[in-house]
Amino acid sequence: MSDPVKYVLDETRIPKHWYNIQADLPKPLAPVLHPGTLKPLGPDDLAPLFPMELIVQEVTQEREVPIPEPVREVYRQWRPSPLYRARRLEKALQTPARIYYKYEGVSPAGSHKPNTAVAQAFYNKQAGISKLTTETGAGQWGSSLAFAGALFGIDVQVFMVRVSYDQKPYRRALMETYGAKCIPSPSPETQSGRAILEKRKDHPGSLGIAISEAVEIAAQRDDTKYALGSVLNHVLLHQTVVGQEAMAQLEMANDYPDVIVGCTGGGSNFAGIAFPFLGAQLRGGKQVRIVAVEPAACPSLTRGRFAYDFGDTAHLTPLVKMHTLGSVFTPPGFHAGGLRYHGMAPLVSHVKDLGLIEAVAYHQTKCFDAGVQFARAEGILPAPEANHAVKGAIDEALKCKAEGKSRAILFNLCGHGHFDMQAYMDYFAGKLKDQDYDEKELAMALAGLPAVKEAA
Amino acid sequence: MSDPVKYVLDETRIPKHWYNIQADLPKPLAPVLHPGTLKPLGPDDLAPLFPMELIVQEVTQEREVPIPEPVREVYRQWRPSPLYRARRLEKALQTPARIYYKYEGVSPAGSHKPNTAVAQAFYNKQAGISKLTTETGAGQWGSSLAFAGALFGIDVQVFMVRVSYDQKPYRRALMETYGAKCIPSPSPETQSGRAILEKRKDHPGSLGIAISEAVEIAAQRDDTKYALGSVLNHVLLHQTVVGQEAMAQLEMANDYPDVIVGCTGGGSNFAGIAFPFLGAQLRGGKQVRIVAVEPAACPSLTRGRFAYDFGDTAHLTPLVKMHTLGSVFTPPGFHAGGLRYHGMAPLVSHVKDLGLIEAVAYHQTKCFDAGVQFARAEGILPAPEANHAVKGAIDEALKCKAEGKSRAILFNLCGHGHFDMQAYMDYFAGKLKDQDYDEKELAMALAGLPAVKEAA
Repeated sequence: MSDPVKYVLDETRIPKHWYNIQADLPKPLAPVLHPGTLKPLGPDDLAPLFPMELIVQEVTQEREVPIPEPVREVYRQWRPSPLYRARRLEKALQTPARIYYKYEGVSPAGSHKPNTAVAQAFYNKQAGISKLTTETGAGQWGSSLAFAGALFGIDVQVFMVRVSYDQKPYRRALMETYGAKCIPSPSPETQSGRAILEKRKDHPGSLGIAISEAVEIAAQRDDTKYALGSVLNHVLLHQTVVGQEAMAQLEMANDYPDVIVGCTGGGSNFAGIAFPFLGAQLRGGKQVRIVAVEPAACPSLTRGRFAYDFGDTAHLTPLVKMHTLGSVFTPPGFHAGGLRYHGMAPLVSHVKDLGLIEAVAYHQTKCFDAGVQFARAEGILPAPEANHAVKGAIDEALKCKAEGKSRAILFNLCGHGHFDMQAYMDYFAGKLKDQDYDEKELAMALAGLPAVKEAA
Repeated sequence: MSDPVKYVLDETRIPKHWYNIQADLPKPLAPVLHPGTLKPLGPDDLAPLFPMELIVQEVTQEREVPIPEPVREVYRQWRPSPLYRARRLEKALQTPARIYYKYEGVSPAGSHKPNTAVAQAFYNKQAGISKLTTETGAGQWGSSLAFAGALFGIDVQVFMVRVSYDQKPYRRALMETYGAKCIPSPSPETQSGRAILEKRKDHPGSLGIAISEAVEIAAQRDDTKYALGSVLNHVLLHQTVVGQEAMAQLEMANDYPDVIVGCTGGGSNFAGIAFPFLGAQLRGGKQVRIVAVEPAACPSLTRGRFAYDFGDTAHLTPLVKMHTLGSVFTPPGFHAGGLRYHGMAPLVSHVKDLGLIEAVAYHQTKCFDAGVQFARAEGILPAPEANHAVKGAIDEALKCKAEGKSRAILFNLCGHGHFDMQAYMDYFAGKLKDQDYDEKELAMALAGLPAVKEAA
């Protein structure tokens, strides 16, 4: 056989700590603010929603946060995940580039999301919590938390945006197989749900509403907390196992990335692969270009403003400084539901603002073109979200071809598309549209950002 | 961390040969007969359908058949597949048994089927074939051959039983993503299809009809051959990479199976895990109990007769000696479509007749009970077919518990259930029925077996 296509590590090589980029930032993150007082939030403000260990992880400046043994015990079912050299794709593209991808679809739920779901379930269990509430759109996050809940004996209640609940019954079935309760949102189970149903009985729901319902229930009960699948610092922290493993695997290949590509919605899979490399660079290591790929229909990094904003539509969350399209901005519908969020993780926004990463935006049909080309060469069928990273990596590889340069490109293939086949059917039937957002709506949403005067 | 849960091998450990149990059988297989002359078939009789390399593999008595390097090149994308110790399931069952499972769902198509699809595509490509036809029921095989065809630049035409084509659009979408053409059968593209459509325009199709259509097209054209996903000796041969790897992985665990469990439809995943161990036993190695688990609604090993029969309903194939329910027997509908075949691989039938393996039959709801228990403990959602093996393994583990004995149980988790979520939804909705076959129909089908006088 020729050189390897797959770099595997045994389970003793699962990282022993998560990497915290806050320790290496040239400038600290802006504080999270209380929406009433506009003063920095204290740990107690978050205590009704999260166990203290996670609140501490949200703000810690320690470079290495130890991964508890029970979390590593679960990780080892699918971690270290494989790193692939995409030799057949390289051949198909006739590129001199060396393309590597880290494949997170090997987790039981089929994406990178269990990396944080398992950690969050563990810390909640340790804090005596018996129930977790959360929201889900496309269902990747909901099924991951359902999986983690099953392992730690925690009841999981998932508020699933009603239109997805109706359109994606198989994701729901997966959550139920893991024993979770899946509720279409808006629901009659919460005050916020009932208020919306009173106005419109057949309301299709939104992520913002589902968040409100999940938060409302968690805030009311001592035995119940809330879990979020992206955006927050501790969620990004848990994903850094991805990049740490990739670094060890590229060492096996005697290689180091010139370019790293990840898709960005809330920012967690992107940060997971990129931050360990970015941290090494910030500590004096090799420079690496890092490219965030986002959907053109919801382009928070390329068209949003870096400003304080709410995390939800109903303005129940604290104010965080991030790249945002405005919390009232409604992105048009497209198939990469996991990238359909008005804001961007504060940490990803911050490093973008510092000029440490680049961002590009693509329309979805070009991403599906890339995904199908990838599937035919590499065999793995990517999730619509992951197709954005595939497209970004292919474009970088074609640049190498045009310039006659052999660069090492690393991207995160964050999940498989087995539960997204309707999107592929629409693609093949020519039904996929490249919808653009409404420029006027974006301008209005940005104009409506809360006025926050920042300390110099 | 405690003892490993996952045994991984790097790609240099992919087997270099397939293991051929024919070399170690105490009594040779009965010959395949020409249905007209009732004389043993020669290689030329099969040449219109298969390339010569595969025909040779069908009858060779060599113990080790080398795996061509280009096939190993493709294998290494997902091979060696992981072997898991099911520690969480053991805990849930409170059993002293050591349960291991080999997980074949990591292949791009999600099952063990690519192990042979890739080999068959390679040998056909080598023989200058540019097109392969095949049939598929549930779609596991069709999507695997579609994947293999994409890699070797072979056009793949899949005749998919019409009722499945309509009910399982996502499997079809997967085949199309790999570039295959998927045609609902009966179709107007063949004489046999047209003959059936003339009688009944809305005929739901059957595997037997789909085979006829695929064979008809392959037989007509020099550049086109036919591919089968189970039953034949060369198909079982290709699957022995599974058992060979498991043997090496159990060596890492310092263990050896007391019991091996696999589900049986055509017999290929079962033979893949069991034959390398059975061969070692036949050569004087450790005794191991081997249990084939089949659906109670289609129980060829437990209720069929070991006799010469046709492989298809329309009687176009040669006569093979196997456990059969009669080629005109129609099993009732159930969700493990991959196990819904009237016959059993001649090699599996033969070792059953020699008393070297056992067989049990289970109804589907008990198998889904087991599958859901497995998913909640281990995270992986099994295919309905694989649930039969899970049920068999759990029953063996509970026997260990009752007897207070710690035995090593190895089973083959041959595929994931991501494309079978409707079955899980039906299960949770209480809509799954345990249909039994019609005793009278079985008696009539067995009475109608062709009269073949065997040489002593």
